[in-house]
Amino acid sequence: MKNNQNQKLIYLDYAASTPVDAEVVSAMAPYWTEEFGNPGSLHFMGQEARRVVDDAREKIKKFVNADSLRNIIFTGSATEADNMAVYGAARGFTNSHRLVMPHIITTAIEHEAVLESCRDLEKNGLARVTYLKAGKDGIVDVADLENALSPETALVSIMYANNEIGAIQPIAEIAEIIHQWKKFSGIVSDWPLIHTDAVQAAGFLNMDARKLGVDLLTISGHKIYGPKGVGALYVRDGINIYPWLRGGGQEYGMRAGTEPVPLIVGLGRAVELAEQWKSSADNIKNMLKSRDHLLDKLLTIPGVALNGSRERRLPNNINVALTNRDFDTIMIGLSQAGVCVSSGSACAARGQKPSHVILALGCDEKRARSSLRVTLGKYTTEKELDDFYKILQNMLK
Amino acid sequence: MKNNQNQKLIYLDYAASTPVDAEVVSAMAPYWTEEFGNPGSLHFMGQEARRVVDDAREKIKKFVNADSLRNIIFTGSATEADNMAVYGAARGFTNSHRLVMPHIITTAIEHEAVLESCRDLEKNGLARVTYLKAGKDGIVDVADLENALSPETALVSIMYANNEIGAIQPIAEIAEIIHQWKKFSGIVSDWPLIHTDAVQAAGFLNMDARKLGVDLLTISGHKIYGPKGVGALYVRDGINIYPWLRGGGQEYGMRAGTEPVPLIVGLGRAVELAEQWKSSADNIKNMLKSRDHLLDKLLTIPGVALNGSRERRLPNNINVALTNRDFDTIMIGLSQAGVCVSSGSACAARGQKPSHVILALGCDEKRARSSLRVTLGKYTTEKELDDFYKILQNMLK
Repeated sequence: MKNNQNQKLIYLDYAASTPVDAEVVSAMAPYWTEEFGNPGSLHFMGQEARRVVDDAREKIKKFVNADSLRNIIFTGSATEADNMAVYGAARGFTNSHRLVMPHIITTAIEHEAVLESCRDLEKNGLARVTYLKAGKDGIVDVADLENALSPETALVSIMYANNEIGAIQPIAEIAEIIHQWKKFSGIVSDWPLIHTDAVQAAGFLNMDARKLGVDLLTISGHKIYGPKGVGALYVRDGINIYPWLRGGGQEYGMRAGTEPVPLIVGLGRAVELAEQWKSSADNIKNMLKSRDHLLDKLLTIPGVALNGSRERRLPNNINVALTNRDFDTIMIGLSQAGVCVSSGSACAARGQKPSHVILALGCDEKRARSSLRVTLGKYTTEKELDDFYKILQNMLK
Repeated sequence: MKNNQNQKLIYLDYAASTPVDAEVVSAMAPYWTEEFGNPGSLHFMGQEARRVVDDAREKIKKFVNADSLRNIIFTGSATEADNMAVYGAARGFTNSHRLVMPHIITTAIEHEAVLESCRDLEKNGLARVTYLKAGKDGIVDVADLENALSPETALVSIMYANNEIGAIQPIAEIAEIIHQWKKFSGIVSDWPLIHTDAVQAAGFLNMDARKLGVDLLTISGHKIYGPKGVGALYVRDGINIYPWLRGGGQEYGMRAGTEPVPLIVGLGRAVELAEQWKSSADNIKNMLKSRDHLLDKLLTIPGVALNGSRERRLPNNINVALTNRDFDTIMIGLSQAGVCVSSGSACAARGQKPSHVILALGCDEKRARSSLRVTLGKYTTEKELDDFYKILQNMLK
């Protein structure tokens, strides 16, 4: 990769987007011009398209350890899967509890796709929402969750790993608390549903939805070396969320629209590759080693401080505050030097708002406006990290 | 294209899906592994991704003659764009007319993406819907439309060309009637909004949204030799439909989610190619000639009758009833002979229901269950049509 000054780029923004793996590109290739049937068609080309869609579905099913193919709903993005989970749970609950306003528990550090869906429901009087705080380490306090639960709770949506600071939430423990609370309260229904946005976690952590104890789980293609434009929502057997897109009845009636065959095939291949990569302890260990080496060097610079927990953190994530520095000048300088890093999530960058995640950790606005996210990927080299460090160090002198 | 008996296929189902044009595949290619930035990122790679997204947006803007870039909202499919138009108009109207239930006028021959969205709103008491009938020719009666209009009408959604029978609706005339009715009724607001699903029309007819007089217009990638997984909704300047996906504020706050850069680039190239193709009078003329040659031969077969108007019809569409025949056996036989044609829309095929379009023309269920759609594409050859005719003729003997 080079920029328009033909400068070699140092890409350290893998949490924003990953390149598509060459094997995924190859897997998608036949489905553009050759095997282009509509999976809804009854003829041979349609049936072949349908077969490969379900073949990919089988791979996602395996990846998240789902019970059946119909537990996997393909969407156009993780944002869509998150919206489908939040609105779908709220509407599903409303349908079965006519006179009760659904209550949603989520966190102040969620991705905007969940937060904005919750805010929209609140604004329209369609749900009441509790936003759990996170500690300085970026981890949600499970006691707060227990206090927030009520028989009116329709959904608990807590991300698996945070997109800005990589904080890993104790999802299995959270699910267990909810299940225990339900038992204790004598609640025998499926409510509240438990959703986790596992977009950032998918490349690194165990994705067994049944072990995690969740009902709904979101993944994205382009964060795991798959294509942009496709995501998936795991929906546990037997639960009732309200369907999303209306039309031709695709995706078991949950999400209408012609299935984007090449993208679905690409997502299927991407989860296989992700599973392979993270199954190798060496891959994770080496990434952690590289990450920690860079982090330790960064922390020797005066005024540099880590945001969030060091231990309960994705192995590819660094997020540091550069206090008492002209942060905007640094960001511009890094970009001019061919370094791709981030000042927050890519989705929020455009809004130029201070990071809601860093604010939620109890940090002030200044820190929330001067935090740098550096995220490693499977193609990251030691040399890139060293070069990045030297460039940043020179800038901070 | 060959099937699993290594038989040369005769693909005549271009209305269900088209192969991606090789030029579109090339246009998308750099954006998988090389230029994979997230358009939301502020660094060089992100800005480059954003530039190409807006470059494609400019192409769609030109294609539909929109006022500004922000009139073009990319979606994950035409179904999503249709849902966004229907729900967005109903919710937008509700927000500005608190105590009035929105009224929607649509047709009984619409695509399921519009029909099912309307039915869902009805079911939930969120809208009242009038379904206009079509004549035997498949054309909506404008007098019925005039009678249905009321100050409570939030949306009129009428497709530009039908996906099953290719019937071309007089959209400009319809829009003019609505504008005149508004003037006559002293309505100065933007309501009712006028939406047209132009998915099937885009490859053949004039797409100037301003000349058509519509506020909302849907297009799809994979019906015009672009990729599956992307569509767009034209939203006229200044009108207020309720935003669709919530999250990072992409697509001018109307549809959140990381922009699928390669697909958007592909759609941009596809509309350019579509414009080129249909601008050549020879292309349309030759297709019409081939189509009519086949149709005339088909109509010599006893019991074969055309569904819908012959004149007010897309140049690539044939839809004939094969009455007094064992239709299912014919369909299976055609598929076995390597012929890809359709018994209705691909979206509805799976449901095995009789075609709601043929029924709406006043035909009986038997005819709605025994109608064959044959749709030509830019790669269709005379030989394919001749071979198809011979195969069908043999089967009907």
